[in-house]
Amino acid sequence: MLTRIDHVGIACHDLEATAEFYRRVYGLEVAHEEVNEEQGVREAMLRVGGTADGHWACVQLLQPLTDDSPVAKFLQRNGEGVHHVAFGTADVAATAETVGQRGVRVLDPEPRHGTAGSRITFLHPKDCGGVLTELVEAADDSAAKSEKTL
Amino acid sequence: MLTRIDHVGIACHDLEATAEFYRRVYGLEVAHEEVNEEQGVREAMLRVGGTADGHWACVQLLQPLTDDSPVAKFLQRNGEGVHHVAFGTADVAATAETVGQRGVRVLDPEPRHGTAGSRITFLHPKDCGGVLTELVEAADDSAAKSEKTL
Repeated sequence: MLTRIDHVGIACHDLEATAEFYRRVYGLEVAHEEVNEEQGVREAMLRVGGTADGHWACVQLLQPLTDDSPVAKFLQRNGEGVHHVAFGTADVAATAETVGQRGVRVLDPEPRHGTAGSRITFLHPKDCGGVLTELVEAADDSAAKSEKTL
Repeated sequence: MLTRIDHVGIACHDLEATAEFYRRVYGLEVAHEEVNEEQGVREAMLRVGGTADGHWACVQLLQPLTDDSPVAKFLQRNGEGVHHVAFGTADVAATAETVGQRGVRVLDPEPRHGTAGSRITFLHPKDCGGVLTELVEAADDSAAKSEKTL
């Protein structure tokens, strides 16, 4: 069902400065960067290491685009730090359905657009022991499924 | 330097109830459990998936043993949720030294005992963008180094 820790999402005020911290201190490089208007964030993925399911475990840095985005509100309440934890799964829709049947509120009725073409959904932190939890299906897993369907 | 996300440490009031949540909802099992008196916690490791460096990425659950332990204080301040992020490294002492030279306060002058025979050190969250960061050298990596020294 879950096959990896896909990433840890970290809220920050300044994406460049925080990325530079991870580069300078640990040698981690930005592998991917994008703006997600829907979520109101600019984000960067820093690969920490490969995972046995053929993907990567990343640090994801999140900087809010506007003062009223969820990540901006998180920063106002908590300051910089861990915002969410994302687990990788081969089929995000099926996993979300199963998890929903087990009593966890799934925040996105349909999986939505995540980083680098992934499909994601968030789970309600109050149902997950205080942890804002994300489920991620990598873009190449989605592509492999589409090919099978053709 | 860092080769994996080793674990995400999650503070909880009730280890059994939280482990049962991860088992029932995601099918994750407790692979290891122990009491760490020095850190004032009872902890459980739940394996999420293998990592390309031959280890595991885990969810670590932490329940305080006493009301004045650091995890108890975290719970009083923040409630349940993500407490720290741990990165795996083949040589925790060398990595801690390098990171210290790069201006990050290393909280343990000598690596100390972590879960399942690992050697760990914590880094100051104020130097790490608000993230309490742990460095972990797995027990079998330490054993491999000792054999080389003999």
